[in-house]
Amino acid sequence: MTILEQTIAAIRPADPVAVAEARAHQDRLTKPRGALGALEEVAVRLAGAAAVSPPPLPAPAALAIFAADHGVHAQGVSPWPQEVTLQMVGNFLAGGAVANAFATQVGASVTVVDVGVAADLDPAPGLRISKVAYGTADLSQGPAMTAEQVTAALEAGVVVARELVEQGARCLITGDMGIANTTASAALICAFTGQDAAVATGRGTGVDDETLERKVEVVRRALLANGLTGGPDGAASPGAQTAHAAQMPQMVHIEQKEYKEQSAQIEQTAQAASAMKTLAAVGGLEHAAIAGFILGGAAAGVPVILDGVIAGSAALAAAALAPAVVDHCVAGHRSAEPGHAVALSHLGLRPLVELELRLGEGTGGLLAYPLVCAAVRVMHEVATFDSAGVSDKEA
Amino acid sequence: MTILEQTIAAIRPADPVAVAEARAHQDRLTKPRGALGALEEVAVRLAGAAAVSPPPLPAPAALAIFAADHGVHAQGVSPWPQEVTLQMVGNFLAGGAVANAFATQVGASVTVVDVGVAADLDPAPGLRISKVAYGTADLSQGPAMTAEQVTAALEAGVVVARELVEQGARCLITGDMGIANTTASAALICAFTGQDAAVATGRGTGVDDETLERKVEVVRRALLANGLTGGPDGAASPGAQTAHAAQMPQMVHIEQKEYKEQSAQIEQTAQAASAMKTLAAVGGLEHAAIAGFILGGAAAGVPVILDGVIAGSAALAAAALAPAVVDHCVAGHRSAEPGHAVALSHLGLRPLVELELRLGEGTGGLLAYPLVCAAVRVMHEVATFDSAGVSDKEA
Repeated sequence: MTILEQTIAAIRPADPVAVAEARAHQDRLTKPRGALGALEEVAVRLAGAAAVSPPPLPAPAALAIFAADHGVHAQGVSPWPQEVTLQMVGNFLAGGAVANAFATQVGASVTVVDVGVAADLDPAPGLRISKVAYGTADLSQGPAMTAEQVTAALEAGVVVARELVEQGARCLITGDMGIANTTASAALICAFTGQDAAVATGRGTGVDDETLERKVEVVRRALLANGLTGGPDGAASPGAQTAHAAQMPQMVHIEQKEYKEQSAQIEQTAQAASAMKTLAAVGGLEHAAIAGFILGGAAAGVPVILDGVIAGSAALAAAALAPAVVDHCVAGHRSAEPGHAVALSHLGLRPLVELELRLGEGTGGLLAYPLVCAAVRVMHEVATFDSAGVSDKEA
Repeated sequence: MTILEQTIAAIRPADPVAVAEARAHQDRLTKPRGALGALEEVAVRLAGAAAVSPPPLPAPAALAIFAADHGVHAQGVSPWPQEVTLQMVGNFLAGGAVANAFATQVGASVTVVDVGVAADLDPAPGLRISKVAYGTADLSQGPAMTAEQVTAALEAGVVVARELVEQGARCLITGDMGIANTTASAALICAFTGQDAAVATGRGTGVDDETLERKVEVVRRALLANGLTGGPDGAASPGAQTAHAAQMPQMVHIEQKEYKEQSAQIEQTAQAASAMKTLAAVGGLEHAAIAGFILGGAAAGVPVILDGVIAGSAALAAAALAPAVVDHCVAGHRSAEPGHAVALSHLGLRPLVELELRLGEGTGGLLAYPLVCAAVRVMHEVATFDSAGVSDKEA
């Protein structure tokens, strides 16, 4: 098996016993039932992912910032020069970016991974050079990447996740840097969810009306140029495979349980192949690497906190490759980018922080990290009604 | 001057120079302008409050949990026995409550203050006994407190804030414990904002439909019994004074600037007197103490993170006593209690965390604390475009 196949095979869905135990434990704690709102669900989710209740405290955390450039930058979809990707990598390594300040605040390590910056980088502490290409091709003209590049970027992400966990990380946080990468995210979200380009495309780091209009048009052209125009019914979209598989029961006559298993497997294989094609068509090298990073974290048994729209679109790809991976993810925040809400809704994830951030770098994931820790800490440290001698609510 | 008068006199509104400097500094940092969304406003707010940009890091933080009982509990507004207030004080002191776990997570100290628990408490480390009464009178029958009790509870809160700052705290977080205290909060919010009882009253820690109906009725009766029925136009409501003052220009003929100053002073004095009456009428001892704690923190020059609906209603009282105090407050979260949104909107505060918490104790404030620190840390540690050699957005 390849690294990617091994990784996907190692990902287990949430353990229902641990989930049930975690819910029951929450209800015994000295607080009104449900009083911690969405945080109770975070603790239950992590118990399911870890297959034990209470789940381990997700500390320490490691942030990986995957950096890459985008051929589509040539279409004028961003007001920032492409060189800013390279310059910001320098800023991360010097400790001067917002992600560094937030990482210091929450005690997370920072690793920068070059998977596709359009320049050669000098080795430096905190930098991992896993360059797959000097940026992608222009997705509005045809596929952004070759199949080999997608696989290499995915595996680069898996390897970073594995190594960070081997080095002691018990929670991974996704980060990204890539001028023009919200354009690729919007295209991925359209392809994976069937949403229209006008809905899924946003202002990124702050484009004007004219640029936004051009960006929507570029996303449309990218979907068309890559045979993805039909959204969920399009050729390379996983939705199409699902619809096809759903029709099978009327066509075949085999024992039902066996059929269902075979059918699910066929459907999953088709969906995975389709996801690889979609990533190659309109993804970025950092999107593919982040998808691999998410898969790698889940396979290694640690929760993954997703940052913003780049992570959200990468998670759609990861979920198409291995649906159970979603059980290991926490949505750190909801960014100001409209496609992000579309992606999170498709994944069934509720974001923890909603402060109109639109920076990327992992900043939203880092802000959510103490909330995730707090949710889990409750499971370990809070007394039960019995142990504390506190009267329960009257029935 | 009394302690309260000294405290109010010491509170300064946001410094406009520091605010302007903070905004300008945000725009020079290596991030797209506005990319940190609501967090940029938090940093700017703290700069205004501290009258310096960047503002000092708000660390370490101290949580004070003000505990008290409520005569209105007799009306059946909560499914929890009144003894739970006392039992939870024991749980806080033993370190077994959610507030303790969250405080550990964010490195905040915890002080429990008995301002009105309906039982005598034994001295214990972490407990401050500032008991004003053994609970309030039933607010649905008439005033919950005497004027002397309100003043004593307010001053108890001021003193706790002062002492925590003297001991090194650079950020205060409000906490509360008091079975039935969301009923008093709802009544305070109606009185200060003019909102209807049916809108401002919620399920607290989880009451059923029947109890909620009774609770709304109790809040209505409390407003009626205390002459507060008219909402913002009611006798003891600050809104009434504002409306009255607004009509004055047509009635008097003095030099305009002098008139405005005098008018503002008269209005403020009337508003403060009215706020004291409203607190006495339908407040709780912990509400009054938290109002004092907020005023004390602002007077001592440290930001105050407000927890949920108890803090929100107490902040309405504090703001009526000293309008500038709001510039020193950060809304930690928005609770599931509907009156909280009403209070925050009236105060002009945007909550940082929105996770449907409905626990109190300071839990929402504690969760927001790392976000506040992160917002300020950015101002100290993030490089500027110039210093990092990063290209700015093309005009």
